Amino acid sequence: MRSLGVDLGGTNIKVGLVDQFDGVLEQTTLKTEANKGPDHIIDQLLRGCDRVSEGYDAGTIHGIGIGSPGTVNLARTTIAHPPNMPGWKVVNVAEAVQQRRGSELRVVVENDANAAGLGSAFFGAGRPFDSFLMVTIGTGVGGAIIHEKRLFRGVSGAAGEFGHVSIDYEGPPSRAGTTGAIEAYIGKEFLSEYARYRLLNRPDTAVHEMTGPDLEELDSEILYRAALDGDKPAQEVLAWAGHKLGRMLGSLVNVLDIRKVVVGGGVSAAGAYILDPARESLWDGAMPAFRAGLELVQETLGNEVGILGAAHLIFERIEDEKQG
Amino acid sequence: MRSLGVDLGGTNIKVGLVDQFDGVLEQTTLKTEANKGPDHIIDQLLRGCDRVSEGYDAGTIHGIGIGSPGTVNLARTTIAHPPNMPGWKVVNVAEAVQQRRGSELRVVVENDANAAGLGSAFFGAGRPFDSFLMVTIGTGVGGAIIHEKRLFRGVSGAAGEFGHVSIDYEGPPSRAGTTGAIEAYIGKEFLSEYARYRLLNRPDTAVHEMTGPDLEELDSEILYRAALDGDKPAQEVLAWAGHKLGRMLGSLVNVLDIRKVVVGGGVSAAGAYILDPARESLWDGAMPAFRAGLELVQETLGNEVGILGAAHLIFERIEDEKQG
Repeated sequence: MRSLGVDLGGTNIKVGLVDQFDGVLEQTTLKTEANKGPDHIIDQLLRGCDRVSEGYDAGTIHGIGIGSPGTVNLARTTIAHPPNMPGWKVVNVAEAVQQRRGSELRVVVENDANAAGLGSAFFGAGRPFDSFLMVTIGTGVGGAIIHEKRLFRGVSGAAGEFGHVSIDYEGPPSRAGTTGAIEAYIGKEFLSEYARYRLLNRPDTAVHEMTGPDLEELDSEILYRAALDGDKPAQEVLAWAGHKLGRMLGSLVNVLDIRKVVVGGGVSAAGAYILDPARESLWDGAMPAFRAGLELVQETLGNEVGILGAAHLIFERIEDEKQG
Repeated sequence: MRSLGVDLGGTNIKVGLVDQFDGVLEQTTLKTEANKGPDHIIDQLLRGCDRVSEGYDAGTIHGIGIGSPGTVNLARTTIAHPPNMPGWKVVNVAEAVQQRRGSELRVVVENDANAAGLGSAFFGAGRPFDSFLMVTIGTGVGGAIIHEKRLFRGVSGAAGEFGHVSIDYEGPPSRAGTTGAIEAYIGKEFLSEYARYRLLNRPDTAVHEMTGPDLEELDSEILYRAALDGDKPAQEVLAWAGHKLGRMLGSLVNVLDIRKVVVGGGVSAAGAYILDPARESLWDGAMPAFRAGLELVQETLGNEVGILGAAHLIFERIEDEKQG
């Protein structure tokens, strides 16, 4: 069984033709050109679908799954207020695609962090787990709750905003204004800002040579690279971040009784420097009764995980149709 | 339809005969005599069941639901390590009751905080809500996740330990040792301890006249009473607690996309003095996208809520049997 998986972003649209067992068969990337508005974006997305479908029997491709930032409704048809897409309020993407390609085409949309969770569950590091928490670290911190191989979506379909779990009731505000949200510590820009202050007067770090004066260009990539090169101060910063991440995850484990965690996103490059301290701090934060079976692993699929999860939305829909 | 609901505690066993529509028909309380061990406790529990069933047709009573502290397995048969019950390790309560009363008798056990959640969902303040978070404030802080009128139980049946959500990654330890857990701020003993320090050198509070020297006897009841009598310093302490509670709940809303909260437990007496600040702080802590429909209400059923929820376990089981 095959389907098309779309990872819709503010800059790029990544599209893959995905086989349920073999994963990504074909893949392409297009510019989103988000400033041209929703109609254009949907056209771009379909252009990508056509490109990766070329040479394949259309009858074997069962639908289009789309992962996108923004809020997706329970019916998985509309995307609301995706950041970095000016002029996009609430768009029924499923309907818009069906108007162009026929109403019998399956189109399922999902929040991008949720799509990444499904991708991990069926193709990535989450495969061994029936239930796990997926944390995606980027500019923001996204999350997905996978319970018995399905998403827990809450009342309106928006569950899993782990980035806005507060780890300090008096802490700094996140981009959404929530106080002490984990995103305000380990989101890429927040962490870079923290690192700039922490390392500015540390002559013992190599990041000074890797960036401009005042560490203005210090970003998470540089930080990761320095840590991997053995730079102790950079490693300290990542350990600080990992410690915070683990605390947040400990709270989630206590609330959900889900004891497996998959961490994805750009953080992957820094690997153990964040995740080892996170494991320790997660262990401390989980109630003793919840420590058995506690596991934190890294997603290694990279960006593909979003495409795969989006494609899985179609496989899941077909399963559901069979169940009635 | 009727069933027996048991609220099993370390000191008392409360048993009710419950009608699915009319609620508690008969009720009794027995001493647990926990030091005499599990077998004796189960005998006591059945004694209570017999007492409230007297005069009712046994054929109309469909089973025994039991809410208990400790960890309950997914199958809802065993209770593990209930605090304050010495010598109780892991006991298959369902089996033990069936051995005494016949294997065809439905027996369903559940964690007491979860039972309270179900009680609220079907008989209490949670009735208007399909999905809500139940927080029970006592010595510890318990919780239940009600999603579409059922418990979300996690992987092993132990989900909902809201008391161990950390609101400060450097905060004080809970009884379980978790850092900055909300329980370590608003659990009754923790809050009383905090109040003792905060009010000791405040001549403007009436709690000095309500307790012994050094405020040694200051407990949450005295605190609540003082607040209700208009004592500003006592009200400040409760507002401090409410603020913390709201922060924790904000995180939960962001994770679960469940926007209704019912607060139960002894806190009820202090009503608005905790819950108003909690509402404000919950609003602040929830992501803007999650603020629509946010609601925090107080459970007014009191201790009955546990009995009703325990009894509901049987009604739910019967529904499930019908569904196959």
